[in-house]
Amino acid sequence: MTPTHIEHIGIAVKDLQESIKYYENVLGLKCYAVEEVKDQKVKTAFFMIGQTKLELLESTSEDGPIAKFIEKKGEGVHHLAFAVNGIENALKQMEENGIQLIDKTPRKGAEGLDIAFLHPKSTKGVLTELCEKKG
Amino acid sequence: MTPTHIEHIGIAVKDLQESIKYYENVLGLKCYAVEEVKDQKVKTAFFMIGQTKLELLESTSEDGPIAKFIEKKGEGVHHLAFAVNGIENALKQMEENGIQLIDKTPRKGAEGLDIAFLHPKSTKGVLTELCEKKG
Repeated sequence: MTPTHIEHIGIAVKDLQESIKYYENVLGLKCYAVEEVKDQKVKTAFFMIGQTKLELLESTSEDGPIAKFIEKKGEGVHHLAFAVNGIENALKQMEENGIQLIDKTPRKGAEGLDIAFLHPKSTKGVLTELCEKKG
Repeated sequence: MTPTHIEHIGIAVKDLQESIKYYENVLGLKCYAVEEVKDQKVKTAFFMIGQTKLELLESTSEDGPIAKFIEKKGEGVHHLAFAVNGIENALKQMEENGIQLIDKTPRKGAEGLDIAFLHPKSTKGVLTELCEKKG
């Protein structure tokens, strides 16, 4: 498995609207979508920069994963998502290499991608997502 | 100012050699350079993935910025670097927008790029680097 590019960078923020303002008005990017992902308890905002998306993540609940992340580490980069071809195979290879899978099989993520997370304990501290755009 | 792509993602690691093994043997990327940046008290390793580099950072000193980062937050993503055209102008615009500059003027970074850091307190928690390849 060789990932082709950084599909997106997930960034935990306290206030989505304030952060969109920063990324648009100061950094000069354009927010092209805002989406709520209820089962992850987040509201997301997407920006494109070259091949890569920035995905801002605001928690919609005090006990959601993003709220807990911010409580522990503060706002900042939450995860890196690597685009791969053949995500099922990639996960199998990861497991054979002793990597702890958060998702044993791919599930549907934002924008209809097939995604799976790897545990940061086995990826040198980086919460890592594999993802593939199918069909 | 509109950044063109994510030039690199800086990742703080405890052990550069162990981390290179993970990124090469498990994730399938290829380390193309290892470089020591003495004034930043780091050893770095570079990988290319699409338009973007991963820059692993190991501290060479207990009181270096990467050592302090890991002590506080653990291993993980340390900074995001945005490629821009006209870095001097970009910094001026940042300052006019109330962004706290760590580097008031560009300095030379790894791989001969002109670089400047913005303080995470004014960039929604993300230590942000602007960089430009000149000449």
